[in-house]
Amino acid sequence: MIKPIAWDKGAVVVLDQRELPHRVRYLRCRGVEQLARAVEVLAVRGAPLIGIAGAYGLALGVRRSAPGTVKRDFQKALRRMARTRPTAVNLFWALERMERSFRDSAERGGRAMPARMLGEARRIHAEDAAICAGIGRHGAGLIKKGSTVLTHCNTGALATGGIGTALGIITTAYGRGRVKMVYVDETRPLLQGARLTLWELQRQGIPATLVCDNMAAGLMAGGRVACVLVGADRIADNGDFANKIGTYGLAVLARHHRVPFYVAAPTTTVDVAVKSGAAIPVEHRHPDEVTSIRGNPIARAGSAAYNPAFDVTPAGLVTALVTERGVIRPPFGSLRKRLSL
Amino acid sequence: MIKPIAWDKGAVVVLDQRELPHRVRYLRCRGVEQLARAVEVLAVRGAPLIGIAGAYGLALGVRRSAPGTVKRDFQKALRRMARTRPTAVNLFWALERMERSFRDSAERGGRAMPARMLGEARRIHAEDAAICAGIGRHGAGLIKKGSTVLTHCNTGALATGGIGTALGIITTAYGRGRVKMVYVDETRPLLQGARLTLWELQRQGIPATLVCDNMAAGLMAGGRVACVLVGADRIADNGDFANKIGTYGLAVLARHHRVPFYVAAPTTTVDVAVKSGAAIPVEHRHPDEVTSIRGNPIARAGSAAYNPAFDVTPAGLVTALVTERGVIRPPFGSLRKRLSL
Repeated sequence: MIKPIAWDKGAVVVLDQRELPHRVRYLRCRGVEQLARAVEVLAVRGAPLIGIAGAYGLALGVRRSAPGTVKRDFQKALRRMARTRPTAVNLFWALERMERSFRDSAERGGRAMPARMLGEARRIHAEDAAICAGIGRHGAGLIKKGSTVLTHCNTGALATGGIGTALGIITTAYGRGRVKMVYVDETRPLLQGARLTLWELQRQGIPATLVCDNMAAGLMAGGRVACVLVGADRIADNGDFANKIGTYGLAVLARHHRVPFYVAAPTTTVDVAVKSGAAIPVEHRHPDEVTSIRGNPIARAGSAAYNPAFDVTPAGLVTALVTERGVIRPPFGSLRKRLSL
Repeated sequence: MIKPIAWDKGAVVVLDQRELPHRVRYLRCRGVEQLARAVEVLAVRGAPLIGIAGAYGLALGVRRSAPGTVKRDFQKALRRMARTRPTAVNLFWALERMERSFRDSAERGGRAMPARMLGEARRIHAEDAAICAGIGRHGAGLIKKGSTVLTHCNTGALATGGIGTALGIITTAYGRGRVKMVYVDETRPLLQGARLTLWELQRQGIPATLVCDNMAAGLMAGGRVACVLVGADRIADNGDFANKIGTYGLAVLARHHRVPFYVAAPTTTVDVAVKSGAAIPVEHRHPDEVTSIRGNPIARAGSAAYNPAFDVTPAGLVTALVTERGVIRPPFGSLRKRLSL
């Protein structure tokens, strides 16, 4: 399986996903700033993976800290990592968990702190792999034998510490002989579907067909999509969720065509502090990502463009939510209560 | 106004739209084959413009024909031009009109045939300009003051012999102070929105914002789209219509958000021989158009991709159809009867 992130001799080594599928190149991040930049420029992306990167970032920030400076170094790293991406809540969840671990360890004396922080980051990483496996197992039961499915963006091994969320369901279901073929939305502007998901599926020998985002409606009208599977970057308490731009449109199209629409995410993606989708902060990125494609301009320099990285899908359009705990269906009521979070 | 096609001293000069917006380059087509290729590779595109190109192609085919060979030359040119693009019916309409003119002229003696064919092609071209003006005038009345509108693909001066169809409505309405801003779908795979529509609007000083195709749903949910305007490549007798891939999805999204969805086309786009959308032939193009963008691969070589150039929108999703004769609303019944075609 692809390893998009690893701790290696005092550095965080990340696969530079901007270069895929053309080059498999790793970045060796020796400091917090370098890792934070890697997250900001999307060398490292995917909600669960951003959380893991956040945790390793804090371990990196204190790896050489003396007991007298460890708290300051930790706080500095925490502020820097928290500033990288605003929408995926897994990042903030991971940072908070590291903070709790820091506080607990601090009470027991600070000398072992670097090792403790690294240990906690490694646990978060390993737990995510187990969570993915659980999501894959639960979700695979939703896929009927012989299904052709549609997915958006990348929610696979490249986005997580394990086999992925929505894509993990697809690969698990494929292993059980249930998936015939996968339509992969290219996912403009940054083409995570074309560059990452298609590549992951090809490496696993799973039949996959690339489509432009605007082709999904025609595929559904033609009866060519058994179900849609997507991930989530943040899920509100009522089940509304933010995910890669284009997800909401797919949900509306799926509803119109009576195609099941499944969302897969770890329970850590649920932000119980956010009551509904309207309160989820949506990151807007540079217009250049829209006016050019991989460095090649498609419009005149200085053209105006709109570039929200995410959109918000109301819970009512979700057929089922798959977490590591199982499958739940709307009406969700309060996910905090429903999932005992 | 931009002139995407012109007859010039025995040749058909076309603006090579593949190079826009980066270079304004013209191709001088001295023979039918060269012009047919220009249509096939989309140097010349847009349903009405393809019709005009077809007419000029026949004029080109007979421009040096002697009375003894003119019929054979005409038929050869006709077959070649008819083979270029299967979906836009304006092409077949224009070719049939040229054929009728050829037959009428043949009865009156063949020596003047080259001049007659050129005259008929020029008439088709000039009539299209008048048709566009009519569509613009009728359609502008649909746009409320201060509207932000969304359009897909390119339906402007670059696609027609005049100011355009859907885009002609937008520019006419802008002239009347009714349009505040235009969201332009980039229109993958070939980016006609980003490359052509945005460029046309910028040249006219009309505020325009480029969006990826998958952003339209979020814009509508945010109440940022007053109406959607699109063109058509072929309209069935019942009002179902084929247009650039992605149009159908927009129609579903517009319906879901109660956003008016307007279709603009000359009456020649109605194919009364086709009863419903299911019978419209949809052109599928090379997968390379999806797996690469302007020559730069976005997926590994040999990746499978699906590439229908068009999708079909059922009449029931159309708020109104704008032709040069006026605005009509569904249920259309039979367009042949409704428009006295």
